[in-house]
Amino acid sequence: MSLWSGGEMYTDRQRRLAERQREKGLDCIALVPGPNMRYLCGLALFMSERPVVALFHADGRAGAVVPALELGRAKTMAGDRMALYPYADEDGPEDAFLALAEYSGLAESRCAVESLHMRVLELRMLERAAPGARFVSLEGELPGLRAVKDQHEIEAIRRAIKITERGLHELISQPLLGLSERQIAARLDQAVRAAGADSGASPIVVGGPNSANPHAGPSDRALQRGDLLTIDCGVRMDGYLADITRTFVIGEAASEVVAMYEAVLQANEAGRQAVRAGVPAQAVDRAARKAIEDAGYGEYFIHRTGHGLGMEVHEPPYIVEGNEQPVEAGMVFTVEPGVYLPGLGGVRIEDDVVVRADGCESLTSFPRELLVIS
Amino acid sequence: MSLWSGGEMYTDRQRRLAERQREKGLDCIALVPGPNMRYLCGLALFMSERPVVALFHADGRAGAVVPALELGRAKTMAGDRMALYPYADEDGPEDAFLALAEYSGLAESRCAVESLHMRVLELRMLERAAPGARFVSLEGELPGLRAVKDQHEIEAIRRAIKITERGLHELISQPLLGLSERQIAARLDQAVRAAGADSGASPIVVGGPNSANPHAGPSDRALQRGDLLTIDCGVRMDGYLADITRTFVIGEAASEVVAMYEAVLQANEAGRQAVRAGVPAQAVDRAARKAIEDAGYGEYFIHRTGHGLGMEVHEPPYIVEGNEQPVEAGMVFTVEPGVYLPGLGGVRIEDDVVVRADGCESLTSFPRELLVIS
Repeated sequence: MSLWSGGEMYTDRQRRLAERQREKGLDCIALVPGPNMRYLCGLALFMSERPVVALFHADGRAGAVVPALELGRAKTMAGDRMALYPYADEDGPEDAFLALAEYSGLAESRCAVESLHMRVLELRMLERAAPGARFVSLEGELPGLRAVKDQHEIEAIRRAIKITERGLHELISQPLLGLSERQIAARLDQAVRAAGADSGASPIVVGGPNSANPHAGPSDRALQRGDLLTIDCGVRMDGYLADITRTFVIGEAASEVVAMYEAVLQANEAGRQAVRAGVPAQAVDRAARKAIEDAGYGEYFIHRTGHGLGMEVHEPPYIVEGNEQPVEAGMVFTVEPGVYLPGLGGVRIEDDVVVRADGCESLTSFPRELLVIS
Repeated sequence: MSLWSGGEMYTDRQRRLAERQREKGLDCIALVPGPNMRYLCGLALFMSERPVVALFHADGRAGAVVPALELGRAKTMAGDRMALYPYADEDGPEDAFLALAEYSGLAESRCAVESLHMRVLELRMLERAAPGARFVSLEGELPGLRAVKDQHEIEAIRRAIKITERGLHELISQPLLGLSERQIAARLDQAVRAAGADSGASPIVVGGPNSANPHAGPSDRALQRGDLLTIDCGVRMDGYLADITRTFVIGEAASEVVAMYEAVLQANEAGRQAVRAGVPAQAVDRAARKAIEDAGYGEYFIHRTGHGLGMEVHEPPYIVEGNEQPVEAGMVFTVEPGVYLPGLGGVRIEDDVVVRADGCESLTSFPRELLVIS
């Protein structure tokens, strides 16, 4: 499925990172296990009591400290692209950090760390191994490191969406009246796993009055005729996530529900139509928000219009008032306006779009019109 | 279900913490969202890009910085036991950290932080708010903060185990021959959710040769007659986890499987019988290991005998050679010896026990003898 070999892909990503490091005067970048590490060098390790740190120098050198018991996996994942410094439990990681710091020229360097992910544990190890280094925030220096997706990544998101949508179709093909939100969530999980997902559907399932809370947990309340039912879900495939929301109505749609739904549908379309390379992120939020305001529901659209999507379910770019950064071709984000009327319920229609030079492509294709289901 | 009100429980835990702080010369303890924070003050918040820190002074003062949008929930959870310092997104958290630092006497203090959980983000906020403070590692100063469980906690673990075992019984009541590990994992998830679990079963399901890898992921291989099938699982109830492993055999048990199973069963019994208050943790590991060595499988028992269990699936005390800390009455941990024969498969029998003055009580009661299932 991949368009190029993993080795070439990581070499290319590290080359582009090194360019940006030189522009920003960052001698080193230090990463801990998580999406950035997986993205840049393929090391899919976990945070644990045993520290793991990868260092990328602006001259292209890359190395990592890993626990000895992960060395085999790390070699398989990082190939010969990285210098690996293992440590045994009985020795502790200090010497491995010293060796990595020396290899990477960390002493006296300006080094960016993931302040939202790196723990005090790893920071102290780096400080001890390179007393003269200055540690700054990677999020501040290089925001949106993974925001522009390559074809390889977009295809993975597409596969995750395909399976998620198949699960949704399967779910609504059976009557849902009388089931609880929790039961529906379990059915959806089962449906996406049967469809081949690597994970569950992580669904938010909210029905009736509960649907007026955008992020409520599933309850044991049974669905009734006339209820709104909002399902926000997405599986992970090959490390990449889908994120789709649709709101259904059970049995029959009251006129106020139809009006509210129409406003959100217009906002979803207006938001997607505002997307093209070069447009500020906030312009997409404004376009969606205007449609809802024009329909008279402005005060009930209580969240941002969207967020970037990829290895994390929320990542840059954020589609929100105040974000003046232009969106770029290849960025993938959600467009998900919603209206939440206390007592009555909520409607949200969420698509995942990829920015193109002259517009956007919606990767999600599940029907957007109001579906009355049984 | 709770034996005392939440308020009394947290007041008591904070009082005991303050005593230990005074013994250790720790003016302050700084916690980030996670198990320790939930345990000590009931604040069940998440790590996000918006920092949250709670500070506990040795004189009993407790306070926290929280995002404004979490203030309502934080008030509900922390009651009037904590001084809360909220911040709005547009203002940023700096002023709230300054106010908390002043309230808590952080300046010039010796403050323990969770170096395995606190991020660079929160550390920098604390450093800026209290330049003279010295930050040390909580894990080093106060290991096993939550290791001794109260009756309230043990009952929650008991409920999680009851539902997990009900799910296991339900699972094996249907034929499994021909199903894949992945399908079995999905069935178990469904069974525990139907039994009322707050979460899925987080199952490790490995069959046939794959069962020789203690922590392999589920594959699509179909179960065959004669296969070993190891299921390691546990749901969460009221914040506390179960963790149980049983190995079954499909259809018929070869004599080598019976011998291997018997060795692990003896080790499980020997491990449990070695537990009582005051015994060094490593003595439990040694007792289980000796039984397996005596049966001739010593080199195939490739992991520690157990780990503490509570709000986290792995927490102190660790039941491992080298851990000379005596186990204390009320500690809960797993006893889970295993034998893994490459090519043939593995057997693991895991129970959750609570330490008593004169022995231990196994909270798990699922049958331990070899079950041949269809």
